[in-house]
Amino acid sequence: MPKRTVFFVSDQTGVTAETMGHSLLTQFEGLAFRAVTLPFVATPEKAAEARARIDATADSEGELPIVFSTLIKDELRDEVKAARAVFLDFFDAFLGPLESALGVKSSHAAGRAHGMANLETYTARINATNFAIANDDGTHTRDYEQADVILVGVSRSGKTPTCLYMALQYGIYAANYPLTEDDLEGGKLPAVLQRHLPKLYALTIRPDRLREIRHERRPNSRYSSAQQVAFEVRAAEALYDRIGIPYLDTTLCSVEEIGSRIMQATGIERRLKP
Amino acid sequence: MPKRTVFFVSDQTGVTAETMGHSLLTQFEGLAFRAVTLPFVATPEKAAEARARIDATADSEGELPIVFSTLIKDELRDEVKAARAVFLDFFDAFLGPLESALGVKSSHAAGRAHGMANLETYTARINATNFAIANDDGTHTRDYEQADVILVGVSRSGKTPTCLYMALQYGIYAANYPLTEDDLEGGKLPAVLQRHLPKLYALTIRPDRLREIRHERRPNSRYSSAQQVAFEVRAAEALYDRIGIPYLDTTLCSVEEIGSRIMQATGIERRLKP
Repeated sequence: MPKRTVFFVSDQTGVTAETMGHSLLTQFEGLAFRAVTLPFVATPEKAAEARARIDATADSEGELPIVFSTLIKDELRDEVKAARAVFLDFFDAFLGPLESALGVKSSHAAGRAHGMANLETYTARINATNFAIANDDGTHTRDYEQADVILVGVSRSGKTPTCLYMALQYGIYAANYPLTEDDLEGGKLPAVLQRHLPKLYALTIRPDRLREIRHERRPNSRYSSAQQVAFEVRAAEALYDRIGIPYLDTTLCSVEEIGSRIMQATGIERRLKP
Repeated sequence: MPKRTVFFVSDQTGVTAETMGHSLLTQFEGLAFRAVTLPFVATPEKAAEARARIDATADSEGELPIVFSTLIKDELRDEVKAARAVFLDFFDAFLGPLESALGVKSSHAAGRAHGMANLETYTARINATNFAIANDDGTHTRDYEQADVILVGVSRSGKTPTCLYMALQYGIYAANYPLTEDDLEGGKLPAVLQRHLPKLYALTIRPDRLREIRHERRPNSRYSSAQQVAFEVRAAEALYDRIGIPYLDTTLCSVEEIGSRIMQATGIERRLKP
């Protein structure tokens, strides 16, 4: 099946246009799309280039491309809108209703969403990211006092990307502690975790999925064997149940969903405001 | 000034609703908002709860709250839409035009954007994240062969969060190498970097901003002194110019913008498709 081309056009990074477009396109199962992001379309020359590129695609594919636009300045938007495409205009759809609701005109200024960062936001993110990296492997536990949350789980249950996502997205100080075979065989929580029980949140995963993930890393090893994986997951869940650590099955979850569910379940307050 | 309350309501994480709402609200400078995210509104009970909470806010504030909704199921959407609020409906605005353009009906299935992750996407993200962490401090350089990009810069120029953002957002293998005082005084690139010249991309930052950032970390130290910061930035930029390493001033950039500009400037292909 030929793939329909989709453009994400933005005067800034294109992250908002991609997020919006992706949300909508996933509603059309069975269709295939080719995604092209055109970021930093912030001058009339860039807008003319974008238009030419969209027109060329329309010509070569014989079908109108889809354009998701978050362009805010009228002159740039008008230029790109003139391309032969289905033009879905984010600001056009919502700024009018918002202006009425708020009773003021918007500034129509480009690129505020992911543009200039203030020092406070920047510092919060960099500190949270450094915290997640420094507290990633369970060997460094001195900073647990400062942690907002400590994720526990067996190897490859999703702890590391979740901690980093939470740092970048929410500014959360998230540590993670991988449960070792020793921990699991003893059936006891390490003392350092015991001291921070209210901060613990566990990730678990279906053994068949964990096997696949571990197999990618170390094929045909004990680490990725059915028996070992089943033992670890069972022992870990038994431990969480006995001690009363809340846990989430990450098997069908994206990192975004895991992060969001942890925020929701623990009630931790984000340090970065949306 | 009283803050207007804004709700982000979603049957999934709320990330799309927050991104969209944030983009729009930043167009209204000078107004203050109180943001409340209501994620996982995926049942009629949750929808009724959300409606009640929005109505209570309308009552207590004497003003209609703003609701950004990415609810996709009609029954949930209708319930929340009945709340006393200005209701901005993401799918309502765009699904119709998209259905016409594509000539098919959408699936109206909840939570696809950040829902179930496939193994390929999950593995790409986790591998890229682990790569960024393992190659974060310049001591471990064995994996540079595998890197898509190697960021260089003085301490606190934004390398670490950028590498992790690129890993999570694009699946990019990004290493980073902090330039030390020795490197800068010698005016020479370390041999390990010299071997990977085409992969290098540098971050720089205005000395006054770098001072502020370093001051947060180690107040009144040599590390954060005006003289030291000015020397490092000047020497680093001279080195980039001499060797021909492209660089970006991160002073006014968010992590999203830095990541996006690097993708754009280097032409690296993302491993995670938008």
